[in-house]
Amino acid sequence: MKLQAAIDRVTLDDALVLAKKLDPIVDIIELGTSLVKDYGLVTLRKHPLNLKHAQLLLDLKTNDEGAYEFTQGFKTEADILTAMAASSRQTLDQVYDVTMQQGKQILIDLLEVDDQRIEQIADLDHAIFGLHHSKDAGAGFDAVGTVAHFHERFPQIKHVAVAGGIDLDQAKALANQGIADTIIVGGKISGADDPLTAAKTFMEAIHNDIN
Amino acid sequence: MKLQAAIDRVTLDDALVLAKKLDPIVDIIELGTSLVKDYGLVTLRKHPLNLKHAQLLLDLKTNDEGAYEFTQGFKTEADILTAMAASSRQTLDQVYDVTMQQGKQILIDLLEVDDQRIEQIADLDHAIFGLHHSKDAGAGFDAVGTVAHFHERFPQIKHVAVAGGIDLDQAKALANQGIADTIIVGGKISGADDPLTAAKTFMEAIHNDIN
Repeated sequence: MKLQAAIDRVTLDDALVLAKKLDPIVDIIELGTSLVKDYGLVTLRKHPLNLKHAQLLLDLKTNDEGAYEFTQGFKTEADILTAMAASSRQTLDQVYDVTMQQGKQILIDLLEVDDQRIEQIADLDHAIFGLHHSKDAGAGFDAVGTVAHFHERFPQIKHVAVAGGIDLDQAKALANQGIADTIIVGGKISGADDPLTAAKTFMEAIHNDIN
Repeated sequence: MKLQAAIDRVTLDDALVLAKKLDPIVDIIELGTSLVKDYGLVTLRKHPLNLKHAQLLLDLKTNDEGAYEFTQGFKTEADILTAMAASSRQTLDQVYDVTMQQGKQILIDLLEVDDQRIEQIADLDHAIFGLHHSKDAGAGFDAVGTVAHFHERFPQIKHVAVAGGIDLDQAKALANQGIADTIIVGGKISGADDPLTAAKTFMEAIHNDIN
C-alpha cells in the first residue's frame, strides 16, 4: 500500500519546502486544491519540485472543461491529477483520455456520489477511485468499513484510494485489509509538529503490518 | 435581466484587459475556473481590476473546504463566488454562511445534479441557482425550456442564472420569459472578433425585448 501525504492551506513556499523533505519518505506527495486555487498551475510550473522519489499529485478537482484542465495540469510535473466523479460522463471521458494519452494517472474523487453514479463510471479501468470523506462533514469516518463495503459492491474496480482523517490505527488496519492501493493522509502528517517523523511512522505502520 | 460575460482559457493579461473594457457595458464580469486554476487567487489579488460598474464573479467551483475557499476567494475583489451543488450539505452551509457574513453573493452551480439534490438545498434563500449546461456535453441546450421547467418544479427558488452556449435569440427569449435573473454568455462575447460590440448587442437584445 502506498502513502500519499497531502499538503494544504499553507503558503506555496512552505508547501514546496515540506514537499522536498517528504520526497524521500512517502510514495506520493499531494499538493491540495487550496494550493492549486491559491497559486495556480502557471505558478506551480515556475516552481518545479524536481522530486527524486515520490510521485506528485495535484488535487485539481476538475468538474468541467476536462480536456483543458488536464492538459494544463499535466504541463506541471504532476504524475496524477484528480477529477470529480460528480462531473458529466463527457468530462470524465475527456480527462481520462488526456491522462491515458500522456501515460499519466488519474484519481476520480467519489465525494458525494451514490452507487448508481459509481456503477456508470466503473469501466474507467485504469483510474484510481478515491473514497473521500469530506473534511467539511467532520470527524467519524469508518475508513476500513467503507473500503470493505466498496470492494464488495464494486469488485471490478481495481484501484482504490481512501482519504478522510485517517489515523495510524486506521492506516494499519487498511494495510492489513489489503484492498486499498493508497491511503491519503493530510493534517496528521503535514500538520504534525514534526511532519517527517509522522510520515516515517505512517510508512512503518503500513509496511510492518502486512502479513 | 442581467448579462454576465464569462472570460476563460486566456492569459491573465488578456483577461484583465478584456474585463476592463467590458466593465462599462455588462452587469457582471466572470473570471472563469480556468483563470482561477491557472493563476490562483493570490495572483488575482495582486492584479486588482478596480471595476467601476460591473460586479466581479470568480468561478471557484468549490467542492469541499468551503469556509477556506470562500474566505480566500472574498479576499479578492470578487462580489460573487461559485460552489458546486454536488458538494456536501456541510460544504454548502459553510460557503453560504461565509457569503452572508461578508454581505456578498453566491452562485450554486447545478451542473449534473438531480431534482432530489436541488430540493435539499432550495432553502438557501439568497443564493443564485445556476442552471449550467456542461461545455463538455456539447451543443444543443434548450435554455428557455430548461428555465421554464426549473421554475415550475422549484417555484420557491427566487434567483436563477442560466449558462450554456446561449446565443442572441435565446437571450432575447429568456428576457421575454422573465424568470432568469442573469444569463451567462461565454465564448459568444469573449471569443467574438469584437467582444465589445458583441456585449453591447447582447445588452440591447435583453433590454429592448422586455415587454
